[in-house]
Amino acid sequence: MASAPSAFTPANPDFAQRVAESFARQSAMQSLGITLRDVAPGFVALHMPFNAAFTQQNGFMHAGVITTALDSACGYAAFSLMPATADVLSIEFKTNLLSPANAAEFRIEAHVVKAGRTITVCEAKAFSGPESETQKLIATMTATMMTVTPRA
Amino acid sequence: MASAPSAFTPANPDFAQRVAESFARQSAMQSLGITLRDVAPGFVALHMPFNAAFTQQNGFMHAGVITTALDSACGYAAFSLMPATADVLSIEFKTNLLSPANAAEFRIEAHVVKAGRTITVCEAKAFSGPESETQKLIATMTATMMTVTPRA
Amino acid sequence: MASAPSAFTPANPDFAQRVAESFARQSAMQSLGITLRDVAPGFVALHMPFNAAFTQQNGFMHAGVITTALDSACGYAAFSLMPATADVLSIEFKTNLLSPANAAEFRIEAHVVKAGRTITVCEAKAFSGPESETQKLIATMTATMMTVTPRA
Amino acid sequence: MASAPSAFTPANPDFAQRVAESFARQSAMQSLGITLRDVAPGFVALHMPFNAAFTQQNGFMHAGVITTALDSACGYAAFSLMPATADVLSIEFKTNLLSPANAAEFRIEAHVVKAGRTITVCEAKAFSGPESETQKLIATMTATMMTVTPRA
Repeated sequence: MASAPSAFTPANPDFAQRVAESFARQSAMQSLGITLRDVAPGFVALHMPFNAAFTQQNGFMHAGVITTALDSACGYAAFSLMPATADVLSIEFKTNLLSPANAAEFRIEAHVVKAGRTITVCEAKAFSGPESETQKLIATMTATMMTVTPRA
Repeated sequence: MASAPSAFTPANPDFAQRVAESFARQSAMQSLGITLRDVAPGFVALHMPFNAAFTQQNGFMHAGVITTALDSACGYAAFSLMPATADVLSIEFKTNLLSPANAAEFRIEAHVVKAGRTITVCEAKAFSGPESETQKLIATMTATMMTVTPRA
Repeated sequence: MASAPSAFTPANPDFAQRVAESFARQSAMQSLGITLRDVAPGFVALHMPFNAAFTQQNGFMHAGVITTALDSACGYAAFSLMPATADVLSIEFKTNLLSPANAAEFRIEAHVVKAGRTITVCEAKAFSGPESETQKLIATMTATMMTVTPRA
Repeated sequence: MASAPSAFTPANPDFAQRVAESFARQSAMQSLGITLRDVAPGFVALHMPFNAAFTQQNGFMHAGVITTALDSACGYAAFSLMPATADVLSIEFKTNLLSPANAAEFRIEAHVVKAGRTITVCEAKAFSGPESETQKLIATMTATMMTVTPRA
């Protein structure tokens, strides 16, 4: 997996492996064909193919399915900065739908805006096509994630 | 389908049939086993079974899948009040995740808060179990929907 | 102050006094003429007069000022259930603007939807006029609040 | 006022003057000492001084007051791209609070993410201090704005 520049120092040097292992346990990612493409400290990119089995009434990908990918991207961007013993939990997220999700493939990029001890805030974007630079912006998300640590 | 009391007068007397027809065109609903249970003017209830193929890393239903049901419920609650020639579009939604989604079945209820000419605002709740009265609140949504009418 | 029925048991029997004391320290409330009218476990109501010094370009109360009252209402609804040593912090909130804020007085009601150990989720509504039952719904808020406790 | 580079072409060449005139009609901006510093197509920056009369219980600027500045910044960023006969209306906004608002001055920057015929989506950030590059991020907003045109 490629790596993007980052302003964050991960709390756990094995962050990329931990992200990949947790991502592999999300059956929803496999069922939707969503793959992990890039991981860096505080950054994750996913790819998702168009799937006619998950559309809305006009044949575009359902906004909730786009949100599923945005949420996982935000969660793992936050998780990449967490201690090795922590798990990540979505507290809330907001999605704005900007263009119909009718591309053959989508690229979802999430980055950490603020990483706190308990709360991490992330932003994500879903683009049509495999390259965010040249493609259309489909949707945005702002998400609040929580660091869950085992109690003593 | 049962009917709930409502403060709204539908613009189209065939609203329940229109909701059912459009809902049937959302392949994402069939793929997730989500069914339409109640329709009233400005109100929709859906049921969704637990599905191990759509979980997050701890085996709970993925927050994005819960959001998919909440979004469709809000969309069709709004759509139930729209004119016969209109379609509905999600502008944005926000989901708060309150409890792990680990029930055998979920009931999702959405109602219209304000129906305007162009913009309709809805709120929805996802409960564990088939009866909202006795069950746990899993997630809430506030959604902004748009009435899309064919241009002259 | 009147009291509304509540499903919540406060962690601190002096909750109403603690809410009133903290509210009195918010200079923004005094500057906007916002007063605390009702406190119950997990519930707060505020009143705010129209003020021509805080309008937007069409002479209605500015959406941010309505949001200021909604945020304080949510914060103190959450705070009413917190332990005596805790403080409350707004993590995020979302406001939907439903009708122009052009009444002589506004009533803002907030209640707790879910009170967790660290995170409390609240919902609030702003109504025109002093009585929510007979008046117009101006705006809604969903807010995520955090319990901040002194570290050992 | 300085000008920032922009990907947007304004519908009205007098956009900067229209923004300044409408901003001047928002009495809330004057009462809070908020000034318009930069206008470009799809971009607005405001400055706001610390004001002890608008704080929360710990002496930081109230989150609703920060939101007031973020909302006006988003509204005028959207308005800068609208036709000369249009007005702008806030449909909804979401604020994430990232750091205590305890600086002497705040800079609020908003830009348009997607400008549609009816709906415009904006994002904004509030920074401590007069220069966003070197200062702390206090809060973020995502806002949905509506183009309101006089009916024929």
